[in-house]
Amino acid sequence: MSSEFGEQIKISIFGQSHAQGIGVVVDGLPAGEAVDLEELQAFLDRRRPGQGLHTTARKEGDVPKILSGLVDGRTCGAPLCAVIENTDTRSKDYENVLTVPRPGHADYPAWVKWGGHNDVRGGGHFSGRLTAPLCIAGGILLQLYRRRGVTIGAHIDAIAGVKDTPFHPVEVTAAQLETVSARRPLAVVDEAAGQRMLAAIYDASAHQDSVGGTVECCVLGLPVGLGGPMFDGLENLIARAVFGIPAVKGIEFGAGFAAAKLHGSENNDPFRVREGKVVTETNRHGGILGGLSTGMPLLFRCAFKPTPSISRPQRSVDLAAMEETELIIKGRHDPCVVTRAVPCVEAAAAIALADVILGE
Amino acid sequence: MSSEFGEQIKISIFGQSHAQGIGVVVDGLPAGEAVDLEELQAFLDRRRPGQGLHTTARKEGDVPKILSGLVDGRTCGAPLCAVIENTDTRSKDYENVLTVPRPGHADYPAWVKWGGHNDVRGGGHFSGRLTAPLCIAGGILLQLYRRRGVTIGAHIDAIAGVKDTPFHPVEVTAAQLETVSARRPLAVVDEAAGQRMLAAIYDASAHQDSVGGTVECCVLGLPVGLGGPMFDGLENLIARAVFGIPAVKGIEFGAGFAAAKLHGSENNDPFRVREGKVVTETNRHGGILGGLSTGMPLLFRCAFKPTPSISRPQRSVDLAAMEETELIIKGRHDPCVVTRAVPCVEAAAAIALADVILGE
Amino acid sequence: MSSEFGEQIKISIFGQSHAQGIGVVVDGLPAGEAVDLEELQAFLDRRRPGQGLHTTARKEGDVPKILSGLVDGRTCGAPLCAVIENTDTRSKDYENVLTVPRPGHADYPAWVKWGGHNDVRGGGHFSGRLTAPLCIAGGILLQLYRRRGVTIGAHIDAIAGVKDTPFHPVEVTAAQLETVSARRPLAVVDEAAGQRMLAAIYDASAHQDSVGGTVECCVLGLPVGLGGPMFDGLENLIARAVFGIPAVKGIEFGAGFAAAKLHGSENNDPFRVREGKVVTETNRHGGILGGLSTGMPLLFRCAFKPTPSISRPQRSVDLAAMEETELIIKGRHDPCVVTRAVPCVEAAAAIALADVILGE
Amino acid sequence: MSSEFGEQIKISIFGQSHAQGIGVVVDGLPAGEAVDLEELQAFLDRRRPGQGLHTTARKEGDVPKILSGLVDGRTCGAPLCAVIENTDTRSKDYENVLTVPRPGHADYPAWVKWGGHNDVRGGGHFSGRLTAPLCIAGGILLQLYRRRGVTIGAHIDAIAGVKDTPFHPVEVTAAQLETVSARRPLAVVDEAAGQRMLAAIYDASAHQDSVGGTVECCVLGLPVGLGGPMFDGLENLIARAVFGIPAVKGIEFGAGFAAAKLHGSENNDPFRVREGKVVTETNRHGGILGGLSTGMPLLFRCAFKPTPSISRPQRSVDLAAMEETELIIKGRHDPCVVTRAVPCVEAAAAIALADVILGE
Repeated sequence: MSSEFGEQIKISIFGQSHAQGIGVVVDGLPAGEAVDLEELQAFLDRRRPGQGLHTTARKEGDVPKILSGLVDGRTCGAPLCAVIENTDTRSKDYENVLTVPRPGHADYPAWVKWGGHNDVRGGGHFSGRLTAPLCIAGGILLQLYRRRGVTIGAHIDAIAGVKDTPFHPVEVTAAQLETVSARRPLAVVDEAAGQRMLAAIYDASAHQDSVGGTVECCVLGLPVGLGGPMFDGLENLIARAVFGIPAVKGIEFGAGFAAAKLHGSENNDPFRVREGKVVTETNRHGGILGGLSTGMPLLFRCAFKPTPSISRPQRSVDLAAMEETELIIKGRHDPCVVTRAVPCVEAAAAIALADVILGE
Repeated sequence: MSSEFGEQIKISIFGQSHAQGIGVVVDGLPAGEAVDLEELQAFLDRRRPGQGLHTTARKEGDVPKILSGLVDGRTCGAPLCAVIENTDTRSKDYENVLTVPRPGHADYPAWVKWGGHNDVRGGGHFSGRLTAPLCIAGGILLQLYRRRGVTIGAHIDAIAGVKDTPFHPVEVTAAQLETVSARRPLAVVDEAAGQRMLAAIYDASAHQDSVGGTVECCVLGLPVGLGGPMFDGLENLIARAVFGIPAVKGIEFGAGFAAAKLHGSENNDPFRVREGKVVTETNRHGGILGGLSTGMPLLFRCAFKPTPSISRPQRSVDLAAMEETELIIKGRHDPCVVTRAVPCVEAAAAIALADVILGE
Repeated sequence: MSSEFGEQIKISIFGQSHAQGIGVVVDGLPAGEAVDLEELQAFLDRRRPGQGLHTTARKEGDVPKILSGLVDGRTCGAPLCAVIENTDTRSKDYENVLTVPRPGHADYPAWVKWGGHNDVRGGGHFSGRLTAPLCIAGGILLQLYRRRGVTIGAHIDAIAGVKDTPFHPVEVTAAQLETVSARRPLAVVDEAAGQRMLAAIYDASAHQDSVGGTVECCVLGLPVGLGGPMFDGLENLIARAVFGIPAVKGIEFGAGFAAAKLHGSENNDPFRVREGKVVTETNRHGGILGGLSTGMPLLFRCAFKPTPSISRPQRSVDLAAMEETELIIKGRHDPCVVTRAVPCVEAAAAIALADVILGE
Repeated sequence: MSSEFGEQIKISIFGQSHAQGIGVVVDGLPAGEAVDLEELQAFLDRRRPGQGLHTTARKEGDVPKILSGLVDGRTCGAPLCAVIENTDTRSKDYENVLTVPRPGHADYPAWVKWGGHNDVRGGGHFSGRLTAPLCIAGGILLQLYRRRGVTIGAHIDAIAGVKDTPFHPVEVTAAQLETVSARRPLAVVDEAAGQRMLAAIYDASAHQDSVGGTVECCVLGLPVGLGGPMFDGLENLIARAVFGIPAVKGIEFGAGFAAAKLHGSENNDPFRVREGKVVTETNRHGGILGGLSTGMPLLFRCAFKPTPSISRPQRSVDLAAMEETELIIKGRHDPCVVTRAVPCVEAAAAIALADVILGE
């Protein structure tokens, strides 16, 4: 079982929340591709909380150091390794977690799996912090994709039940993806909805609680026919990558779960010819049929559970004593990871599609 | 891009709807495991429509022939290959599909991907018929799992918006999984709901239309700590396998999309000690935390879109002439694949878990 | 551990010597490629012993049945499955092998590995018979390669110490590869040497003994730069595939072991310009530098041990009784598998190179 | 194409000779395993030249920094990443190599493969320097293996035609492996032969030339039955890994190429019972039958070509001008990499066997 993804472009993520460093190896990138480190940094900075949002995010800037794979700003064919050194690790906050697993976290099964040897500090390898190397790999890939006419953008679809306006399944544009995905403090289409989301987050935070939400992601510009049947279809690949983001509990493509309630005559998207190209009139299929891209916008939504780290007392078990106990998780906690998840979802989609976009 | 799954237990599915045969190779099974072919046949027969349900299912019995890997009814360490020969293929029904892609099917992107060389007859390798070898592999694995205390069972969670009673997320038992999943004509907990589902199916069929639905699946008896962080967690593996079933458009684990609307204090499952074991009081996490099994029932739901093959005239495009046209798909069509999807979901889950159950 | 090879083109071999069938799945072939089954059969027939050579080869013609992946003689993008049914299996010959492992065969470690459940009849999955599906996959690939300007040919380099004339490392031509590799009864450059090889084989056979030998293989027409550094270089890939042929115990590229005795000034191949192309004057590097193709003929030799099945009494152990015993292997045995190994080596090279030739 | 190895234990090597750093990620190590960094350093130091041997080895100590995967000196289940920063890179020495490829090096095909974007400084990712991360991964694995009763040791089998005494194929002991492999200045059984090897190296160096050689490696303590048939046998795995070491051009197991000249009656190793265990009287099979370990010492030899970097003028081609030219490679060059290759071969064997030793 591994923290690796891909066959031709292999992405290998390493690090724990409080290890000396976290990072990623990307093996198989085409050579001669410019990688703009400032643009990459801007992408990584989108993982930071918007102003006024309380989070556990550390002060360190999360500036990746490229150890290998780039020569004079271009890929050289050799594996690219990027590392972020951890400098501000505040391990003490986590001391009482050592034997009392936090509800909703991986602490308990990880403790069993690794016989008590797992790195419990800050969630170890399960930490949301590992989305930083995910975003490094994804951010680099996104630069390559753009040169190939492919744009990936996401927005907060909902937080705490407050819905944003969804992307238009047929008319969404690359420009819109870029604008919306970078919007602060929240990446939303409808900024008024964003204000209501913030209010819900503040409210949860004031009650020492947290909220979840959904993210909608769109991939534009894929040629027709990428992907494959059965296990390496686009849905399979994207789902596998997106569930690599902590707290994701569901994913749906196109009409998704709503399609299950429709009739075939309502759900099928008729084919049309527009400007000499085959398109579908509607896009309930979300740009994927039989695991293959259809040329229509690829659209999916994924669900994030509310942050399990909350300050309220919770019931847990002291694993050493095998006794039930009350757990209070110290420190300040991010009341809503969804605000920072948008680039992570884009990065996961980018990683999922690396073999089909760069390899096919 | 491939029709293969797994690293230690490798499953390779081949065949097209109207090829000479379809089948599967399962490489890496432990040796000395009894495979009961009658029990396997009973499992495969659950893919058949219930009495009174109209479908495209062929008369042939879909009896797999084991070419290799079994000696005297036991696995011998060599790859197991099972083949179903296609005998009743009615290719003529599909003739007008050759250049006019069926809406909601893979015809169009497959035609582009393979430059017109794909096997269009009956959907080719994209056909729902390929779930037969999926079920062969899954059905064999299920026999091995049961000996290891692991049971997988599914039921129809909903059809056309008619809901079945869900499995109890904490108290569901192996006996219930076995009873419900094998129930005919529909695998439901609540047989009255099943009757309403049948009515909805007949109604759609009467209107030359089709309906979709959701399937809920449960895995019981997994030891704590199977799976892994990041890309090989249980959610990643199961999602990747389940999207291998045609028509699946969404998947969610535990509370899934509903969790996105809850507060952390509502969604976190408190740990308790029961009979000397660590359990959770509730099971909104669906038996998986951080990609690892927690020992609680593993629960997921997946959404099937309505069968795209409907008899009504539909709008499509003649790809040869690049002209819009009306398409009428001949033959009789299954108005609801969900009725037959239950063993497929169980098989996909079995395939997804092969490396962690048999390999770890 | 598996009988699969490749990442983009995945080859999965199944079957045991005396199972109902043996075969191969090739997943990932480009679509629209003509596969000439007569040409394939001619390639497979090269695995048959030359006239006058005694072997265990069965009478059945080893005609593969293509179950899937071909439509009207062309690949259709779906996995190709080919099966050879076993009809003449003479299991009785192998009865006393059940508990007394044959020296030089896999019987003993396979018995331990699979707890006595391995298929012992005829070597099971370890049988040389499994080179038939290897040759099916390789033979199909060779047809695709030829269209891309790549030719693979091999010859018997030596048998029982009798040396054939090696291919000229710089001047070898595709025409020569094709002529020599198909020559009967032995695929040799120097037919007089071939006669001496035959004499050595007959002599061994007369003494109920067997002989080994070496095969030299050449790949012509590879573009420059295929392969990769470290673990997926051409040497790595070819070595991994060639050791998949039973009885291979060594492999060397270019000057190989002889290079270890040279000085750098003798072994380095100077670069020259010839007809506007960069070439090397000599070819001690065997067409590979740093795991990458250089455009020069790719040359390797592999060593086959003498057939371990001999009629002479041999010392072994009865595993049931844990007592030393004498073993006499019944039946007629091939005194030299090298005579039939030439297409197998070509096929293994073809399989090794599938990802780099068809995928890069 | 990748610098990764393994399915359960995945090893991913990154870096170029003159990049900011080189290193390795090892994903899938069992948790709770102590890693002794001093012992690891001692293993890495065996890659340094013996006293009095001239090499290109840099002064920096090659001390790896463990970024992740270890907590309090024990593996924690998360991927282990180790980095060596490059501090003394003398890029200037390589300036004239930029457009004139060095004979015997990967410069030319890498330049073609990566369109001139490859990192040419010091061989880039093809550099022998990348054996340092190989040895980090291998050195860590060796510590785990020893706890499981498995010892891997190698010695210089020959340099410039001067032969060392080979390991006894049946009687070799773990103690001997440990003593011989660590011997300085050369890891040889017969120290007098070592003196003659040194003389040959000095002589080559005095003539601005280089020499090659062979290394013999032994794995002791493997349980019977590890490995598999076809493509994942022990020979396949070891060959694939060992060809990952630059300059290796051949590999043979047991009697290897010599077996090709023997009769079956000479080459077959009779089975015997010794102290209640099944053994072979002789060990021409090198501890592997049918790709599976037999419990006898696993023995292989690999051939290293002479270092291609020599100070003598050589003929090459200026790729920019497409003109033949004379090349003089500046700097001091290691006249014999074989002296430092012994731990690399052990490490490659360790990496090759990770899945079967730790995963099966």
